[in-house]
Amino acid sequence: MINVATIGTSWITEQFIKACKLTDLYHLKAVYSRSVDTAKDFAQVYQADYYTDALNNILFDPEVDLVYIASPNAMHFSQALRAVKAGKHVIVEKPIVTSIAQWHELEEAANRNGVFFFEAAVHYQNRNYRRLKELVKGKLDEISQPFLGANFNIGQYSSRYVQYLAAMEKGEKGPNVFNPAMAGGTLMDLGVYPLYVAIDLFGLPQSVRYNAQKGKNGVDLFGTIHLKYADFMVNIFLSKGVHSQLTSEIYVDDETIVIHGITRIDRVDLIDASGQEATLIAYTPENPMYDELVNFAEVINHPDDTHLSYVYEDWKQTSLAVTQTMELLRKSAKLPEIDEF
Amino acid sequence: MINVATIGTSWITEQFIKACKLTDLYHLKAVYSRSVDTAKDFAQVYQADYYTDALNNILFDPEVDLVYIASPNAMHFSQALRAVKAGKHVIVEKPIVTSIAQWHELEEAANRNGVFFFEAAVHYQNRNYRRLKELVKGKLDEISQPFLGANFNIGQYSSRYVQYLAAMEKGEKGPNVFNPAMAGGTLMDLGVYPLYVAIDLFGLPQSVRYNAQKGKNGVDLFGTIHLKYADFMVNIFLSKGVHSQLTSEIYVDDETIVIHGITRIDRVDLIDASGQEATLIAYTPENPMYDELVNFAEVINHPDDTHLSYVYEDWKQTSLAVTQTMELLRKSAKLPEIDEF
Repeated sequence: MINVATIGTSWITEQFIKACKLTDLYHLKAVYSRSVDTAKDFAQVYQADYYTDALNNILFDPEVDLVYIASPNAMHFSQALRAVKAGKHVIVEKPIVTSIAQWHELEEAANRNGVFFFEAAVHYQNRNYRRLKELVKGKLDEISQPFLGANFNIGQYSSRYVQYLAAMEKGEKGPNVFNPAMAGGTLMDLGVYPLYVAIDLFGLPQSVRYNAQKGKNGVDLFGTIHLKYADFMVNIFLSKGVHSQLTSEIYVDDETIVIHGITRIDRVDLIDASGQEATLIAYTPENPMYDELVNFAEVINHPDDTHLSYVYEDWKQTSLAVTQTMELLRKSAKLPEIDEF
Repeated sequence: MINVATIGTSWITEQFIKACKLTDLYHLKAVYSRSVDTAKDFAQVYQADYYTDALNNILFDPEVDLVYIASPNAMHFSQALRAVKAGKHVIVEKPIVTSIAQWHELEEAANRNGVFFFEAAVHYQNRNYRRLKELVKGKLDEISQPFLGANFNIGQYSSRYVQYLAAMEKGEKGPNVFNPAMAGGTLMDLGVYPLYVAIDLFGLPQSVRYNAQKGKNGVDLFGTIHLKYADFMVNIFLSKGVHSQLTSEIYVDDETIVIHGITRIDRVDLIDASGQEATLIAYTPENPMYDELVNFAEVINHPDDTHLSYVYEDWKQTSLAVTQTMELLRKSAKLPEIDEF
C-alpha cells in the first residue's frame, strides 16, 4: 500500500481518492486544507487517518509516501518542491508547473531525494490513449501520401465563467481558474490535453503560436494554437467560454481518425475514404483516474525495474516538452505574468 | 427570358444549365469551349442554340444577354472583363477575380457598359444562408456575454488530389486546381465559402493571417486562417487534401449555432446550454444554384428597382471584401504569384 496525503478538496481530489480506493494500491493517510474545517469534513467523508491545516504535518509524517497536489495551478510548483524535498513522491495535477525552469528544479530535487514526480495528465495515462497512439503510429508507418496534420478542438464552457464575468463587471478578482496571475485561463487549464497528444504523437514542433482572445483581466478565454512542424501542422482550438461539439481529427491519406473528447479520449472512430465509419476505441472506465493511478503505483513499487524506468523517462520527457511549449505559447500570446505562491 | 452563353464545360456548368432550366428565367443560347468538339457535344446534350470555339462569337452576338464563366480561376478576370466590355452581364464562378485591382477594373467596366456582374457564391445566395444570417443577427442582438467568435471548418478531399501528387512525383504540372500559377489551391477554391460567411456576418476583420502547409509546387494544401476582430476572432480550417467531418460553430452566450456544410449551409442546429439540439434550418434544394439564379435574374430584369439596387450593392461589397481578404491572406502565407490569362 502506498500511503497518500492530499492537497486540495475540490471534485478532482474526490475523484482521485475514489480512484485510489478502486485500485486497492493506495491508502488515504491524510488530508490537508488551509481551512481546518474543510479538511475535517473531507477526512470524515473519505475516511482519512487524519486531517490537518499545517502542510508540514503531512510533509514530515514518515508514514506518508506520496502527496497528491490539486491546489490552484500557481501553487503546484512550490508545494511539489517542498514535498519532494521532504522525500515524498508527488502526483501533481496538470499543469505540473508554469515554466521549464521550475520543471528542471523539481526534477533535480526529486532525483536528489530519490522520489518520483508525476504530472497527472489523465488522458495520456489512459488505455484509450495507448490504443490511439498505436493506431496513429501504425497508420503513419503505412502512409502513402504526405502527412498534412491534425486538428484538435476543445471548447468547454466553465461552470465558473458567469462568476468570472460578474466579477469583471464589479472590478473584482474572480475565480482562480480565470485569474491569469494564479496561472488560470484556457491554455493553462485545457491546453495540456491537446498538447500532450500532439507532442507525444508528433514530437516537439519547430515553432508555435497562440492567438488568444483575452478578457478584461488579461486571461485567455478563446483561442487557437498553431504547432508548426517541418512538413505538417497541428491546429488546436480551445476555450473555457464556449460549448463546442467539435471533435478532433488526424488525417492519414484519405482516412480520418476522429477523437471524441480530447481530454479523456472517450472514443476513437476511423472514417475511410468512402465515408464509412468504424469505432475502433471506446472504453469507459469506472473512474477516469484508475489507469493513471495503476501506472504510477507500478513505477513507485518497482523503482529498480529497467523497463519501468524507461517508461517513467518517457512520461517526464513529454511533461517537459508540454511545459516548454506552454511557456512559449504564453509568451506568444503575451499572457500576463504568473505570481508564484 | 435572359439569353445565356456559357464558358466552361465541367460539372459546375452542367449544374448551372440545369438550374437555368428549373428557374424558367434563362434560355441557353450558346456554349463556348476552346475545343470545338467539346462545345458541340455539350451543346447537343443541353440543347443550346449554337456552339462555338471562338469567344467573340458569343461576345458579339446581340442576342446573348449574359455570359456564365466557369473557366479555371486565373482566366475569370480577363474573360469577365471582355464580356462586360461587350455589354454582357456576367455571372462568374468564385473566386470572381484574384486581386482588388482586378475587382475594381471589372466594376468600372460593368458600370460604364450598364451591365451587372455577379460572383456565384452559391451558399451566400441560398435561402438557408439568409435564414442563418437572421438567426445569428437576432442572437447577437440579445447577447448577454461578450461574443468570442466562431470556428469554420472545411476539409474536402479533392478528386484531383491523387493526380496532383502523382504529377509532383514525376515533375509534371498537374491539374489546374492544384496549380498556384493558375490560381488553384485550397484558399482560392474553398476559402471563399467561409470568408463570405464571416465577412457578411461580422464585417471586415482588423487583421488576417493564413498558416498554410504547401505542396512541392507551392500550392496551399492544408491550413488555418485567423481573422482578428476588435474583440472576437474567427478561425477557419481548410484543406483540399483531407476528408474532415468537422462542422462549423458560432458561439453566442452559452449556446452554439452549428452549421453543417459551410459550402452549402445544408443544415443549421442550435445547441442550448444543456446540450439540447434543435435543427432550425434544413432545406435541400433540387439544384443548389436555383436560388442564386432567381436572385440574379431579379436584379437583371429590374435594373431600375431601388431596393434591388441596394441588394446588388451589398453583394458587390461582400464580393469586394472577400477578394481583398483573399489577397491579404495570399500575401500572409507567401503563396506563389498568379499568372493571368
